[in-house]
Amino acid sequence: MTRAYEALETRFRRLNSLREAAGMLNWDMSAMMPAGGADARSEQLAVLQVTCHDLLSDPAVGDLLEEAEGEGQALDPWRRANLREMRRDWLHTTALPTDLVEALSRARNRCEMIWRQARPESDFAAVLPTMQALLDLVRESAAAKSALLGCAPYDALLDEFEPGGSAARIDVVFDQLAKFLPDFLGRVLEKQAAAQQPLAPEGPFPIAAQEALARRLMAAVGFDFTHGRLDTSLHPFCGGVPDDVRITTRYDEGDFAKALMGVLHETGHALYERGLPSEWRAQPVGAARGMAAHESQSLLIEMQACRGAEFVAYLAPLAREAFAGDGPAWAADNLQRMYNQVRPGFIRVDADEVTYPAHVILRYRLEKQIIAGDLALADLPGAWNAGMKELLGIVPPDDGDGCLQDIHWFDGAWGYFPTYTLGAIAAAQLFAAAKSAVPEILAAIGRGDFAPLIGWLRQNVHAWGSFHSTDELLEQATGSPLDPKAFEVHLIGRFLE
Amino acid sequence: MTRAYEALETRFRRLNSLREAAGMLNWDMSAMMPAGGADARSEQLAVLQVTCHDLLSDPAVGDLLEEAEGEGQALDPWRRANLREMRRDWLHTTALPTDLVEALSRARNRCEMIWRQARPESDFAAVLPTMQALLDLVRESAAAKSALLGCAPYDALLDEFEPGGSAARIDVVFDQLAKFLPDFLGRVLEKQAAAQQPLAPEGPFPIAAQEALARRLMAAVGFDFTHGRLDTSLHPFCGGVPDDVRITTRYDEGDFAKALMGVLHETGHALYERGLPSEWRAQPVGAARGMAAHESQSLLIEMQACRGAEFVAYLAPLAREAFAGDGPAWAADNLQRMYNQVRPGFIRVDADEVTYPAHVILRYRLEKQIIAGDLALADLPGAWNAGMKELLGIVPPDDGDGCLQDIHWFDGAWGYFPTYTLGAIAAAQLFAAAKSAVPEILAAIGRGDFAPLIGWLRQNVHAWGSFHSTDELLEQATGSPLDPKAFEVHLIGRFLE
Repeated sequence: MTRAYEALETRFRRLNSLREAAGMLNWDMSAMMPAGGADARSEQLAVLQVTCHDLLSDPAVGDLLEEAEGEGQALDPWRRANLREMRRDWLHTTALPTDLVEALSRARNRCEMIWRQARPESDFAAVLPTMQALLDLVRESAAAKSALLGCAPYDALLDEFEPGGSAARIDVVFDQLAKFLPDFLGRVLEKQAAAQQPLAPEGPFPIAAQEALARRLMAAVGFDFTHGRLDTSLHPFCGGVPDDVRITTRYDEGDFAKALMGVLHETGHALYERGLPSEWRAQPVGAARGMAAHESQSLLIEMQACRGAEFVAYLAPLAREAFAGDGPAWAADNLQRMYNQVRPGFIRVDADEVTYPAHVILRYRLEKQIIAGDLALADLPGAWNAGMKELLGIVPPDDGDGCLQDIHWFDGAWGYFPTYTLGAIAAAQLFAAAKSAVPEILAAIGRGDFAPLIGWLRQNVHAWGSFHSTDELLEQATGSPLDPKAFEVHLIGRFLE
Repeated sequence: MTRAYEALETRFRRLNSLREAAGMLNWDMSAMMPAGGADARSEQLAVLQVTCHDLLSDPAVGDLLEEAEGEGQALDPWRRANLREMRRDWLHTTALPTDLVEALSRARNRCEMIWRQARPESDFAAVLPTMQALLDLVRESAAAKSALLGCAPYDALLDEFEPGGSAARIDVVFDQLAKFLPDFLGRVLEKQAAAQQPLAPEGPFPIAAQEALARRLMAAVGFDFTHGRLDTSLHPFCGGVPDDVRITTRYDEGDFAKALMGVLHETGHALYERGLPSEWRAQPVGAARGMAAHESQSLLIEMQACRGAEFVAYLAPLAREAFAGDGPAWAADNLQRMYNQVRPGFIRVDADEVTYPAHVILRYRLEKQIIAGDLALADLPGAWNAGMKELLGIVPPDDGDGCLQDIHWFDGAWGYFPTYTLGAIAAAQLFAAAKSAVPEILAAIGRGDFAPLIGWLRQNVHAWGSFHSTDELLEQATGSPLDPKAFEVHLIGRFLE
């Protein structure tokens, strides 16, 4: 270890604690805070953010990074990787002048506020001017970061969510998938139409019973309640810190599967956080690799493991008991058909496993064009509807169910969308590799025993933190970098066989 | 406003947000956090503390304070008071060298840990060496602060909890009370022995019903749930921030009064926080006056208002209904006798209104002597037992029920104890003044309407924040500085008439 490197570790440890504090306050804001606490909380979070920014943009940090990098050969591989991640963090933090950061933050808040009104009213024109103002600032920051990172502006935005990711790489993956999906979807819909329609279990399903079952399943999957909590919030998420992971869900008395599958999804995120290398807790290299890797873990648990026949066979009697259910609707094969129904729809968050990638590919293609300046925002609704027609064969009745449906663009999170489907692809690849490496995984899941699966994930994914790039991580764990093949094989297996 | 003053306001606003963040995380630690989150949380809180310390001990702050004080005539009275409170905050923060602050923090943690073992084992000798080590550091910091504040070492410790307080002032008040109490206690015990013994309502009292009743009473008293929460924790407290006040309680299925009175107590604290001047939210002058003023608000609600005949008459039918009670135990006059039983005991936190001051006076006298170097820690158990004999006529069977019972000395909070009884005295004084200014207060409380009382408190106490000293505040609100007379009148009225 060198003096400069050591000084950096000290500073990043402090930075980490401040960010963790902000993370806990964000969780509280969604899960606990009464409405009247909002102003004080915004102020607390803003001050924490400024404090973190000051800590990292101190000129001393740039000097230390250079000095430590010059002595890089004195560091072991983990410390070298840590230094690389420090540099990345530093670049993203210092790339933008303070006034641009502040302008972005204000534009984000303003645009989100107007979007919250415009969406229910399906009024794209109402949000267009503020969206344009926000986009101008996003493009300005993309340009600034692109110069420093040495990549295209869109890739610079992407890098914040998917470190090292590039449109060139995503294009290859998405184009392959976009070629596969339309025909595949047609065959699935055909097969489904010919098959028996699933019966919906009859509710209501009391929230207390849903929660008790959710906790039981979380524990089965491996969630440790001495290191985390389950609460409710308007939008389910996974927050907190690795040693205190807080997941949330929301309950619908008419449909227990929504909350349950949501909880299993968030549990996948939570297990990733918990499994990150504990000896690197407070350092950048100890953090999750990125949003694609994170989504791979939630989708691996929810989609790959928990919508499979083995898990549903384990779940069916538990659910029947929890809700005092009776009749053929509670049979495992009926529940599994129900959980895996495919139907093209307008709304991404309600989409099934087969049509979900189309929603993401549409958004990815549009935002790439918009950031490049090849598509004007005024033309977005038309381009959206044309894309929906092309990819899913349907056209939304209005912009509320179209280009206004997601918060991301109106909140400034350009470059985020592709990570959903990159995660889905990685999940399929990892689950296939895990099953092949540890043959008893499926049978164990059928008994509600996730230990063999989680053990493999811990060792091959979680414990690596940000040591590797996403592609390196996948290569090491599965023998190949990100490749849609396993996802296609999975879809064929689940929906056509 | 002057340039220097304005720069100070900006810095203290930032400091306030960081402290608020720490406050919320402290609440979470007690009310929400799973055990496994403890290490990460300690780290978060430690970093926030260091960040606050750095922000205030920056040499620029000392310069700005001097400059602003030199231009004090250009400031209005609230800003002048704010400047005075900034100086006080700055003195307490910068009085101690960093290594003493760190040594204190370590000694505190170590001593508390050993105390947690020693108390149940009643083993004073086991904690004595670490307690001595902590005390040495406490005395060192008292000496350092006393030099800067220009007061005696004990007063310098007291000043952190009761700004501007002094042993000379407290001696007068406590000596008067200590003269009144023993004879008064004898008369109360005599009267009680001759009267009908209260009947305890029979439980169990389901926790859900206790909580529902507690929430109903909180709302009646004036707690606004859009600006706060009620949760459970091992040790009840009032935390959070003025616009998001979080109170906690704990439930005992065998005794509903404990949680209920505890909730009313914390509601008194919460209303004080909520009522602090909103235009001074982020500044020192906008904070609560001190621990005595705070305790005056909780005891005013719990002891003065909610153990009085009017409130109990309102409460009795609600409680009977909540717990489906039946029979004479649920009559208002029986419940009131039950809530106001007097019995000398060993444990402060279980003490009634009459004997409580004796517990506090004992601790105050002992800690004053210890800090002055007039009593060795090794002689504490003997002095404790002698004091109990003198003040309450009883001697604890062991140190666990004696000098080991409270956390304060083992956690480094020397100078805190007197604020409990200063608060009780102020509560009586304020309640008497309120009733005399707004004659309908008692009748309204009898209908569960606290608006007249809270309105008076808002205007005469809450809205003043730290503008006045405690004595000035009382003088303005009641016509006289702190004076035990009203407390004695209250005790006589409640227990002998």
